[in-house]
Amino acid sequence: MPKYVYDFAEGGKDLVDLLGGKGANLAEMTTLGLPVPPGFVITTEACRTYLRTREVPAELTDEVEQHLRSLETAMGRRLGDADDPLLVSVRSGGAISMPGMMDTVLNIGLNDASVLGLAAQSGSDRFAWDSYRRLVQMFGKTVLGVDGEAFDDAFDEAKQAKGTKDDLELDTDDLKGIVTRFQTIVQKHTGEQFPQDPRLQMELAVQAVFDSWNTKRAKLYRRQERIPHDLGTAVSVCSMVFGNLGMDSGTGVCFTRDPGSGAQGSYGDYLQNAQGEDVVAGIRNTLPLHRLEEFDKASYDELLDIMATLEAHYRDLCDIEFTIERGKLWMLQTRVGKRTAGAAFRIATQLVDEGVISEDEALQRVTGAQLARLMFPRFGSTDEAPVLTTAMGASPGAAVGKVVFDSDTAVQWKERGEQVLLVRRETNPDDLSGMIAAAGILTSRGGKTSHAAVVARGMGKTCVCGAEELDVDVHARTLTGSDGTVITEGDVLSIDGTSGVVYRGEVAVTPSPVVQYFEGELEPADGDDLVQAVHRLISHADGVRRLDVRANADNPEDSERARRFGAQGIGLCRTEHMFLGDRRQLVEDLVLADGEQEQADALDALLPLQREDFVAILRAMDGLPVTVRLLDPPLHEFLPDFVELQVEVAVAEATGQEVEPKRQALLDAVRRLHESNPMIGLRGVRLGLVIPGLFGVQVRALAEAAAQLRDEGLDPRPEVMVPLVSAVQELEIVREETERILAEVAADTGQEVATLIGTMIEIPRAALTSGSIAESADFFSFGTNDLTQMGYGFSRDDVEVSFFARYLELGVFGVSPFESIDESGIGRLVRISVEEGRAARPDLKIGVCGEHGGDPSSVHFFHDAGLDYVSCSPFRVPVARLEAGRAALGRSVTDTS
Amino acid sequence: MPKYVYDFAEGGKDLVDLLGGKGANLAEMTTLGLPVPPGFVITTEACRTYLRTREVPAELTDEVEQHLRSLETAMGRRLGDADDPLLVSVRSGGAISMPGMMDTVLNIGLNDASVLGLAAQSGSDRFAWDSYRRLVQMFGKTVLGVDGEAFDDAFDEAKQAKGTKDDLELDTDDLKGIVTRFQTIVQKHTGEQFPQDPRLQMELAVQAVFDSWNTKRAKLYRRQERIPHDLGTAVSVCSMVFGNLGMDSGTGVCFTRDPGSGAQGSYGDYLQNAQGEDVVAGIRNTLPLHRLEEFDKASYDELLDIMATLEAHYRDLCDIEFTIERGKLWMLQTRVGKRTAGAAFRIATQLVDEGVISEDEALQRVTGAQLARLMFPRFGSTDEAPVLTTAMGASPGAAVGKVVFDSDTAVQWKERGEQVLLVRRETNPDDLSGMIAAAGILTSRGGKTSHAAVVARGMGKTCVCGAEELDVDVHARTLTGSDGTVITEGDVLSIDGTSGVVYRGEVAVTPSPVVQYFEGELEPADGDDLVQAVHRLISHADGVRRLDVRANADNPEDSERARRFGAQGIGLCRTEHMFLGDRRQLVEDLVLADGEQEQADALDALLPLQREDFVAILRAMDGLPVTVRLLDPPLHEFLPDFVELQVEVAVAEATGQEVEPKRQALLDAVRRLHESNPMIGLRGVRLGLVIPGLFGVQVRALAEAAAQLRDEGLDPRPEVMVPLVSAVQELEIVREETERILAEVAADTGQEVATLIGTMIEIPRAALTSGSIAESADFFSFGTNDLTQMGYGFSRDDVEVSFFARYLELGVFGVSPFESIDESGIGRLVRISVEEGRAARPDLKIGVCGEHGGDPSSVHFFHDAGLDYVSCSPFRVPVARLEAGRAALGRSVTDTS
Repeated sequence: MPKYVYDFAEGGKDLVDLLGGKGANLAEMTTLGLPVPPGFVITTEACRTYLRTREVPAELTDEVEQHLRSLETAMGRRLGDADDPLLVSVRSGGAISMPGMMDTVLNIGLNDASVLGLAAQSGSDRFAWDSYRRLVQMFGKTVLGVDGEAFDDAFDEAKQAKGTKDDLELDTDDLKGIVTRFQTIVQKHTGEQFPQDPRLQMELAVQAVFDSWNTKRAKLYRRQERIPHDLGTAVSVCSMVFGNLGMDSGTGVCFTRDPGSGAQGSYGDYLQNAQGEDVVAGIRNTLPLHRLEEFDKASYDELLDIMATLEAHYRDLCDIEFTIERGKLWMLQTRVGKRTAGAAFRIATQLVDEGVISEDEALQRVTGAQLARLMFPRFGSTDEAPVLTTAMGASPGAAVGKVVFDSDTAVQWKERGEQVLLVRRETNPDDLSGMIAAAGILTSRGGKTSHAAVVARGMGKTCVCGAEELDVDVHARTLTGSDGTVITEGDVLSIDGTSGVVYRGEVAVTPSPVVQYFEGELEPADGDDLVQAVHRLISHADGVRRLDVRANADNPEDSERARRFGAQGIGLCRTEHMFLGDRRQLVEDLVLADGEQEQADALDALLPLQREDFVAILRAMDGLPVTVRLLDPPLHEFLPDFVELQVEVAVAEATGQEVEPKRQALLDAVRRLHESNPMIGLRGVRLGLVIPGLFGVQVRALAEAAAQLRDEGLDPRPEVMVPLVSAVQELEIVREETERILAEVAADTGQEVATLIGTMIEIPRAALTSGSIAESADFFSFGTNDLTQMGYGFSRDDVEVSFFARYLELGVFGVSPFESIDESGIGRLVRISVEEGRAARPDLKIGVCGEHGGDPSSVHFFHDAGLDYVSCSPFRVPVARLEAGRAALGRSVTDTS
Repeated sequence: MPKYVYDFAEGGKDLVDLLGGKGANLAEMTTLGLPVPPGFVITTEACRTYLRTREVPAELTDEVEQHLRSLETAMGRRLGDADDPLLVSVRSGGAISMPGMMDTVLNIGLNDASVLGLAAQSGSDRFAWDSYRRLVQMFGKTVLGVDGEAFDDAFDEAKQAKGTKDDLELDTDDLKGIVTRFQTIVQKHTGEQFPQDPRLQMELAVQAVFDSWNTKRAKLYRRQERIPHDLGTAVSVCSMVFGNLGMDSGTGVCFTRDPGSGAQGSYGDYLQNAQGEDVVAGIRNTLPLHRLEEFDKASYDELLDIMATLEAHYRDLCDIEFTIERGKLWMLQTRVGKRTAGAAFRIATQLVDEGVISEDEALQRVTGAQLARLMFPRFGSTDEAPVLTTAMGASPGAAVGKVVFDSDTAVQWKERGEQVLLVRRETNPDDLSGMIAAAGILTSRGGKTSHAAVVARGMGKTCVCGAEELDVDVHARTLTGSDGTVITEGDVLSIDGTSGVVYRGEVAVTPSPVVQYFEGELEPADGDDLVQAVHRLISHADGVRRLDVRANADNPEDSERARRFGAQGIGLCRTEHMFLGDRRQLVEDLVLADGEQEQADALDALLPLQREDFVAILRAMDGLPVTVRLLDPPLHEFLPDFVELQVEVAVAEATGQEVEPKRQALLDAVRRLHESNPMIGLRGVRLGLVIPGLFGVQVRALAEAAAQLRDEGLDPRPEVMVPLVSAVQELEIVREETERILAEVAADTGQEVATLIGTMIEIPRAALTSGSIAESADFFSFGTNDLTQMGYGFSRDDVEVSFFARYLELGVFGVSPFESIDESGIGRLVRISVEEGRAARPDLKIGVCGEHGGDPSSVHFFHDAGLDYVSCSPFRVPVARLEAGRAALGRSVTDTS
């Protein structure tokens, strides 16, 4: 026989699954001896039984009756007694707090008779009738399902009739009239009288809490947040205390430290002669907490004592709700309080210094997401700044610059010392140089997973996207607002990548001291307490983590920054970026090559350029591994757009112009290479096997670069990574050729550089056949972007636009699987691959180089899955270091901000 | 200590893994007491050891020496003895026969001295020197790696010098000269003398066999055929017998039954005064076997006895190689013989009637692939027919018809009673009606997995594709051959879907009696022995199989044919085909709908049409399940081509023509819906969740159709299938709406029709999360086409063109994974899904409806994986029934044809 009801004195915070967060903490405070109004909690298990059977279990009714009797005995009052009624509140509260659930009904126990007893006992008619008014309204709305507006309208009418806007101006007679009016509303909407039986009131309220578990909104929220549908909610029943019994009563909230800065002390607000709901409703202005000392020093001192007790007990910042009833202090709620990112770091290290928690615990109290937030620059005051539009904050930070509309201009202006913002309708890989040069990126199309957003986040560069109100005309070099404002090239804009707001003109920006610290521009000792806190905790993370952290970098600048940020090598050096810009012509030559000789010539022309690239990167990463991925994207990405070219030729033909034979040949080639679904077409190793010599020239360039550095006495550590492998046979063939070339270069140069040969695991089949693939691979690196694309059958380019928003709204996703790895599906492929790859080859090195490598919750997953390293964009390296440390302590991600 | 060498008398056919096929069967014949020249076999294990250690194991050398001594004792001759030499042959032979391996060296033991002894013993100088000539040539080429053409050229020169083309015209002196010449060639190419030591000859030959396991060609073949690289080959060493000792000697091959027709008797060829290699080289014409009786009745009678013995022993058709040396018969090889598809069925049932094998065994002796071959019509004689071109036989059969270039014409001409061939550059879903109307399809583009090929195979319709020499001009309605021949609409062509040959004019076609039998046009008793054999074996298969067989059918005609062919329901009714043709406009209206009302109107217009479709299909399948898949493909498939529309508008603008606003709106809509990768974009359930009401109208139409038939007293069994599910949340949402609509229709019509709601499993993530998906699904149906696309990260439309040919050539694939399911990767997803789906819901019904459902080896896999049914195109239903029966008997697929 399960126990369905716990007295507050029987529970505690460890019973959170059974009593819910609210109930467990009330119980905890009760056992601590703090002044909590007596009460009891109905368990989540009772709720689950009710939801399963659609009936209130008989045992529950019995247990509630017993606990209610004890409560009545303890309080010396009976629920709904006509002379001296006990009143209770009924609150929902699951283990995980959840909007959409029925929240609270206060003042249960009042009816047409007991309202008079309450008036007599409290000595205040007005208070009693106001309390009754509140009950009928709350009960009607949340338990009986009456539209809340009906009550609000009636209430407003009464105030209007009285010629006032202030509730306090209403007198007892007004309130009696309102109660009658509210009861009529209930009868009209439900066809029944407002229930006069106090026990029935309580029973219905409890049942309403249970039922609210399965409202559409609650279900949607659970679907979105991946909360199991079968947890159920607990119900707290608590004897009422009143903050609205006069000016010696009141209600407030407080924190044991400043949740904004982390500064020690007590912070909070207090409202005299009010109930909690009035604070939320903002009816009157609250007072700062310390003012309480002026008119009720005893309660104030007691509260400070309790705050100290609670912080010592919970060993963390606590947030507290309390009520003072005629000079007597009551605790109504407490929990570990939310805080800003900066406060989280400060508080964690303060608590270490105070000897309250260990450094391990301190590390568990901060998150990578908080660290990331601290790394973005911010705008100072924006009160004066004119807003051009508000769109999607796609990559946080604050950026100011002159508007440019293309990459070349961005690069040129940047070189002459200008700060620029790159403005495009949408971006593509061609815009990369401009994105690197720009302080920020603004697009009029695409959402949070558009190219601009993803690349900007990867670079740690501010980006606002999907500003659909803006009309971007790249040819005219103008940007037109919906109000007709025209911004021309060179005009200054300021964009806030967190809020998505775009300001006209310049707004002052504050750089992040945390970034200055990581960049080595600021010694920890010279920084403020925040910088010192970050330094302490990330150093501790480095000491405890098992995962190595590498960076994804394609050029020497990124490589150097990655080193400064603590990267232990490069986990992904994409070679396709090296094929853009001026070299695009060489790729065109390769694709259009007529015969083996022309193809060989085109490859020969690429060799020295690739070698230069590799020399620079290997030099920047001297002594650390550099994983070079052979060419991955579809060839047509390096060619002109098929549709544009087709239109160009068709228009030329239609208007009688001659089409250049070379243009026509290009169109033919592009058409030949055009694919219906390039993302799952001729890419990666497939291209390497179809174009003989393509991969070979890359391997040769890398081997020669390494040999050259070895000649200089350096310690290059190249690794060759084959992309898009789906079958071991593909890898076998590339491996044979790679080994042949490495041997040739070693023989030619006399420098034998040990070079690992491994593969991306980014195709579901590769993960599923990892046992055989490991036989030809020295390492695996998970490409979780593609693995997510293929595993879900999603084209990221398309789905974000066409249905991701709808899916997030419907709760099909809680979070985009491109942001945090989907553990049950895609993550399972990772686990299978790790397990079977290692079984076949125990010394297999395993990492991840998808964007998930820098995502906090994904880092924990990769730690648990047993990977050796994560690799992420340079800017995310500190985040990954921190989270890898936290993961090693065996805690899941929690964010208290 | 392993035993590396087996005497023929020690082995037997069960040791095939150790002795290879050839060696095991020689041993088997030896233990049967048949006249096999004495010899021994070096095991595959010896080969494996050699390949691992790169050294001939000392124990092997010892064992070979011992066995050779025994052989010398038994034969009374010594290897290479100058007076009376023993000669041996050395042959490779693995468990699986493999081209690219070194084959045979005959006459080992001859040298400059022993050739004289052989001459003396045989009494024929010419024979001895010819034998020596053969040794130097074969040994030089296969063991020493000398280019074979050097010997051929020298041999031709000698014949030219003699003024003859016939080997037999060369006399002893000529042959002596040739031997000297060949030895010079060996010395020149290898830098060493031709080895005179007979034991060294043997040693080198054995080593050469071992080494040939790892030639490039052998490795490629193994990669293509998925043969493990570590099996190794056995080596048979057999004392030589000679068929070239005069006209009382000879060599031949024979079969115990006619491998073409299956008729009982003995069939074969014989060549007097020849060695086996001469038969293969086709130097002289062979005689039919029965002529042997005329000049060597004793040997002929003995051979007939042996043939009877072998067939009784192997219990199947045997194929035999033999040699007669001066009137003495020797058996050199036997194995179970290959046969045609018709012979396979006939022989299997004959052997049952003869009491040799059981019906179960008979079923194991035939395959679905053989049955499929018997179901295609064939051309009679084509000797007289002029060939237009030869392209790719993409779907077998023989079709004759008047050429048409579009679907409308195909349908019209068909309706007026013409046989037509649909000729297109390539086909797409729009051509479906034309493909259905046509007798055959001919395209100038695309390979064996192009749309035309795949759809035609699905329909069992003859198709030749990729006829690149032909210039198809759809507008001019002409087809131009590479020689300038112009075929105009209405001209007759004949196409052979097996050979890929296209004939001008009409070639007579013979219909398949097997199809006539399945169609019910031919009673088994009225058919020939082939029809009776097919009837017996497929009936037996139906009796033993566990898998149900359903059909994929989208219209009443296909449904009816499927029933006649034995389908037990419809496993896949695609609703997208119902949205084509005249109804395309309705889809356009839906997509272009402005606001909810227009969208609702568009859906309302679709409802009655969909209902009609379902009424017809449910009626045709009365009493059997009909699984209706909700709309699957991307919407833009129903809209005009984006590029064409874009070009049209651009050209209009450039030439100053006005663009109709409607046309412009259409372009805008098509652009909005255009996706970079539509195959992994907005499709299936994603579309259903994005366009509210789309799936609902389909469900309503199905429910109303079922209710209507129930009113008529029929027994409709509809099932609703949701496509492209990747997360259980998607299914939950659709299921809720579906259940609501089913309840509404039941309430409205008073007919409650039990309707299962299930899902396709065609996304890797769906397979990997089957445990949770099963909680919302009554059934799973694997869409193995998409599962293969996503699991491999392949777009079928693209990869077949861009790299499948190269992959098959490189051995990355043995067979296209779209043809037979890839068991290790994609199949693993199927197994995971079945196991975890059933664990969550034991009564889950599971089937497959991808094309693999009709593929023989895949059917076995699905049986093993525990599916309940396979569903395939109507034409493949008999194949699936047969293979499902064979699978139930627990044998893997083997094809003896």
